[in-house]
Amino acid sequence: MAVNLSAPRAEDLRPVAGLRIGVAEAAIRKVNRKDLTVVLIDAGASVAGVFTQNRFCAAPVQVCREHLAAGDIRAMVINTGNANAGTGEDGLARARATCAALARQLNIAPQQVLPFSTGVIMEPLPLDRIEAGLPAAVADAAPGHWLRAAEGIMTTDTVAKAFSRSVKIDGAEVSITGISKGAGMIRPNMATMLGFMATDAKVAPALMQQLARELAEGSFNRVTVDGDTSTNDSFVVIATNKAAHATITSLDSPAGRALREAMLEVARQLAQAIVRDGEGATKFIAVRVEGGKTGEECRQVAYAIAHSPLVKTAFFASDPNLGRILAAVGYAGIADLDQTKIDLHLDEVHVAVKGGRHPAYREEDGQRVMKKSEITVRVGLGRGDAADTVWTCDFSHDYVSINADYRS
Amino acid sequence: MAVNLSAPRAEDLRPVAGLRIGVAEAAIRKVNRKDLTVVLIDAGASVAGVFTQNRFCAAPVQVCREHLAAGDIRAMVINTGNANAGTGEDGLARARATCAALARQLNIAPQQVLPFSTGVIMEPLPLDRIEAGLPAAVADAAPGHWLRAAEGIMTTDTVAKAFSRSVKIDGAEVSITGISKGAGMIRPNMATMLGFMATDAKVAPALMQQLARELAEGSFNRVTVDGDTSTNDSFVVIATNKAAHATITSLDSPAGRALREAMLEVARQLAQAIVRDGEGATKFIAVRVEGGKTGEECRQVAYAIAHSPLVKTAFFASDPNLGRILAAVGYAGIADLDQTKIDLHLDEVHVAVKGGRHPAYREEDGQRVMKKSEITVRVGLGRGDAADTVWTCDFSHDYVSINADYRS
Repeated sequence: MAVNLSAPRAEDLRPVAGLRIGVAEAAIRKVNRKDLTVVLIDAGASVAGVFTQNRFCAAPVQVCREHLAAGDIRAMVINTGNANAGTGEDGLARARATCAALARQLNIAPQQVLPFSTGVIMEPLPLDRIEAGLPAAVADAAPGHWLRAAEGIMTTDTVAKAFSRSVKIDGAEVSITGISKGAGMIRPNMATMLGFMATDAKVAPALMQQLARELAEGSFNRVTVDGDTSTNDSFVVIATNKAAHATITSLDSPAGRALREAMLEVARQLAQAIVRDGEGATKFIAVRVEGGKTGEECRQVAYAIAHSPLVKTAFFASDPNLGRILAAVGYAGIADLDQTKIDLHLDEVHVAVKGGRHPAYREEDGQRVMKKSEITVRVGLGRGDAADTVWTCDFSHDYVSINADYRS
Repeated sequence: MAVNLSAPRAEDLRPVAGLRIGVAEAAIRKVNRKDLTVVLIDAGASVAGVFTQNRFCAAPVQVCREHLAAGDIRAMVINTGNANAGTGEDGLARARATCAALARQLNIAPQQVLPFSTGVIMEPLPLDRIEAGLPAAVADAAPGHWLRAAEGIMTTDTVAKAFSRSVKIDGAEVSITGISKGAGMIRPNMATMLGFMATDAKVAPALMQQLARELAEGSFNRVTVDGDTSTNDSFVVIATNKAAHATITSLDSPAGRALREAMLEVARQLAQAIVRDGEGATKFIAVRVEGGKTGEECRQVAYAIAHSPLVKTAFFASDPNLGRILAAVGYAGIADLDQTKIDLHLDEVHVAVKGGRHPAYREEDGQRVMKKSEITVRVGLGRGDAADTVWTCDFSHDYVSINADYRS
């Protein structure tokens, strides 16, 4: 059960002019399952992406990087059921062949296609089934198919993830719609497992990489389920440039700021949705670390807390065993941390002060907060003015069950 | 159920001349439980310790460091049920008061006592019950009580951990006996949760710190259960200097090497026993990383594998979802890792070569190894001659249950 996350309704997702989506059932791993998605992009769009920092990056990630460098992207193809990672030279060839197959149908160059794969690692991509499924996916393409796409990229996700909003840019109404998928192997570094966002805003191509990076930084790069950075993390931002406003040439202009803020809001919803639907998640937890010397050390502490199996199981049990949070602060790797300055709040409950239990803290207050489905952990380091927040979930029996049975 | 680990027999544990152990039931957290242990050391012993690198170190760890610096240690007092960590100034005062209480009974100075605590974090140490229990513990003291001590320091451990052996030094027979406890919050950095070793060998006091550090490096600092470095990790080595050989003045002398090797063997058994009895463990896994540029980067990769919840749940399920191991290698943080050189063995089965699936690898071979209770993962990085090994366990439903219910 995802935490306070319900499935999107198709009518709430705004089409983005210049972009059509088609989905098919290609039986890549299982039958009767939407597992192949194509995104067809009109000529003239601006496209950028950020990808996993895992050195063992998947074949499609390598191909995406090449094709984005060449520019003029016109299509994307996304399969579930197989990650095409840990597959060596053969995997690269299959990712390229996937692009070529779609390019032939669309009469474009293979370099104009971005491939994405998610699923089991180290098994050969079933190219024949992908090629056989592509015509149906292309035939299905329509502007209103965002929900189908969100469903088409799910693996162990229990809820489809799609968010949409509009924003006025220079008087013109601009649409922003995005989808994501996650569930496990989630500790994105540059991007999530898979996230796609599109807008019909007009954005100068030179700005797109910066925009994609800033959106990922403020959203996908702040969530973690299990600390496992995937081999396939990909986040792509598309501006179809169809809207009726002057081209945005700086993200610091009023129009640029308005677009970035609106897109960041959608990106954050997409990223948080991945945590809300984290494998086995029963709680959504924001870990905010304040009073650090740098944002980086705040994140370091926040991730230590968010990754601690002991902290996560305590949240699952609603057990205010909060010393585990202090222990995680202590081993986060800040060499000159002064434990006598550490402060800890659980929502509004003041748990620890100066590194020890707060005199007024009562266990029933901690317990009351721990039983909620959304909780904010706030740690004060007492050494500076920086702060940062990371979003995570708890660690339950179901996480073990899901990952023990994933391939069966 | 601990993995291939049975309880020690009292008669297999060699007394160490110059050292007596007493255990009592002090009802520190629960009644009818051995929870208070004292170790009484004859004058003239050499003592050294290494402690947690967690910046949030517990009060007893801080007091141990002070007292060891002063030298001439004559006693140790160990309680379970309460870690006296995250307890601020008040916790320090209670740790000192514990030392003072034992010192009064033994007619020694408080600075000659080392205190150790393990259990729940951030709750006040019940000093009254410890003081009330000390006379019984002291009255119980006898050289043959090593097994009682191993039982007396258990928390969520399911099996007492004690190992013993003898070694000839210059023709004299020397005894080495040690105990440890672990189970959860185990990713020692300098030492384990609690480990104590004693020998009657004669070791120059100046060598003791080096000896303790080297023993910890080769044993406790190579195991992990859940990646949570405890606030209380302590490892103490005592040489009572009673044996009939010339004092060892260099660890590189033949006598020094013989002693170190024998002690390292016991230290490794103690450390591995903690993993075998890791919370919820059903498998014992050695992660060996070879072909690194440095030992440090080999450990970094080995720990990334050993801490991955996805890898650990796959071992629990005996599921050869081995791409998860490659993913962990990829995110271990080696920036210039070349994935096309990565090699992976599971015991004798060659799983991956040059970063992709080995052509001869068959899933049933991987499955066969995964079903065993002891497994060696061997990763080749293909970039140098360094190697290192880390020992860990799998991640099961019981880990979640134990940690969700720990305090109830």
